[in-house]
Amino acid sequence: MPDVKALLFDTFGTIVDWRGSLIADFTAWGEARGLTVDWAALVDAWRSAYRPSMDEVRSHPERGFLTLDELQRQSVEPLAARLGITGLSRDDFDHLTLGWHRLKPWPDSVPGLTRLKTKFVISPLSNGNVALMTNLAKYAGLPWDVILCAEIFQRYKPDPEVYLGAAKLLGLRPEQVMLVAAHNYDLIAARACGLKTCFVPRIAEYGPHQKEDFEATSDWDFVVADIEDLASRLGC
Amino acid sequence: MPDVKALLFDTFGTIVDWRGSLIADFTAWGEARGLTVDWAALVDAWRSAYRPSMDEVRSHPERGFLTLDELQRQSVEPLAARLGITGLSRDDFDHLTLGWHRLKPWPDSVPGLTRLKTKFVISPLSNGNVALMTNLAKYAGLPWDVILCAEIFQRYKPDPEVYLGAAKLLGLRPEQVMLVAAHNYDLIAARACGLKTCFVPRIAEYGPHQKEDFEATSDWDFVVADIEDLASRLGC
Repeated sequence: MPDVKALLFDTFGTIVDWRGSLIADFTAWGEARGLTVDWAALVDAWRSAYRPSMDEVRSHPERGFLTLDELQRQSVEPLAARLGITGLSRDDFDHLTLGWHRLKPWPDSVPGLTRLKTKFVISPLSNGNVALMTNLAKYAGLPWDVILCAEIFQRYKPDPEVYLGAAKLLGLRPEQVMLVAAHNYDLIAARACGLKTCFVPRIAEYGPHQKEDFEATSDWDFVVADIEDLASRLGC
Repeated sequence: MPDVKALLFDTFGTIVDWRGSLIADFTAWGEARGLTVDWAALVDAWRSAYRPSMDEVRSHPERGFLTLDELQRQSVEPLAARLGITGLSRDDFDHLTLGWHRLKPWPDSVPGLTRLKTKFVISPLSNGNVALMTNLAKYAGLPWDVILCAEIFQRYKPDPEVYLGAAKLLGLRPEQVMLVAAHNYDLIAARACGLKTCFVPRIAEYGPHQKEDFEATSDWDFVVADIEDLASRLGC
């Protein structure tokens, strides 16, 4: 890959463990308040609402763009009601929504990114909004060079504007940029835009509910064990 | 300033020494090629073309946005001709334009930013484009949390969309954001948008041609000696 200059990383699932982090965070917060709640059920239902809520924005551009923070805040309250979770205030739901800003990286993420940063521009390419990605990077110690995400392009992945917009902002041709992701659908869209592709399996992402992305479903340019393995493969 | 969460920094002049860096870079490059050129004259003329070229974009939004890299590339070739500099190829002018990606920080910038980053979100708020700001940060070791700049908003400072857009992307109210700049005009515009303001004098920025900004011309929220002084004043 002599010509690749920048590596873009899907973030939720690929770099950070959203499910384990949110369940642990909410459990500790709930215990301190004497709440008995099946937090795993809420987190799993919340994540299930994630893609449909973005697809709604993608299908109706005339309604304007809503950030992931806004979509998450909208979906959590009715989901909690449906699961019989009661006694939470508006401030509590705000707090839970900000839980997405406090996620822990997989163990290989920070050492791998730190090595890759020595040779490449590294950036997230996430559907998260700028504030979320910025706060998350500070919390998790992610050493990004720049933060590129859906909000900047007012489009959600897998719309091509996100992948092509990122290459353009970096002053690079699509083939000089590689997307690293744990989700095959994301890589399909990136490849269609001319980007290079790297699959990293995160088979624990959805816990017992993982149904796909156990392995690469196409001949991606790289298939690696984790981010440190990618660093080694790229000579970092 | 108990409520300020993010610090935005003008970059050219405030954080990096564009004039000294470009003259040194071009002099070394020219000597290696046996060129005898008054590089200081070119750099000074180039910088003089900077604001008018951006004002042209600001006055004619219907013509579309041009990045600072594009504006700098457009202006350097006729300026060189006017100064009697001959024998440079297109590639040479491309190389000179990329000189703006290789600027050195003032001595206090990196240690000051590193301290401020422990308590605040830190970002540039520059008229430079994303690729330029990203490459510059890597070259100069600027430890930004996120990169906000004119290109993201498709507007140049001092248009209010840049200051207000930065606060919005950070999920903050304008008064939760402070602009740090060596240029009073920038702070005037930031204050008009409701941002907090900090002046840092860089009286060597323009070398012998410095004509203004020797001192604060208004009662900015902070007036500091340098970025390390700001870190001390903010308890970092």
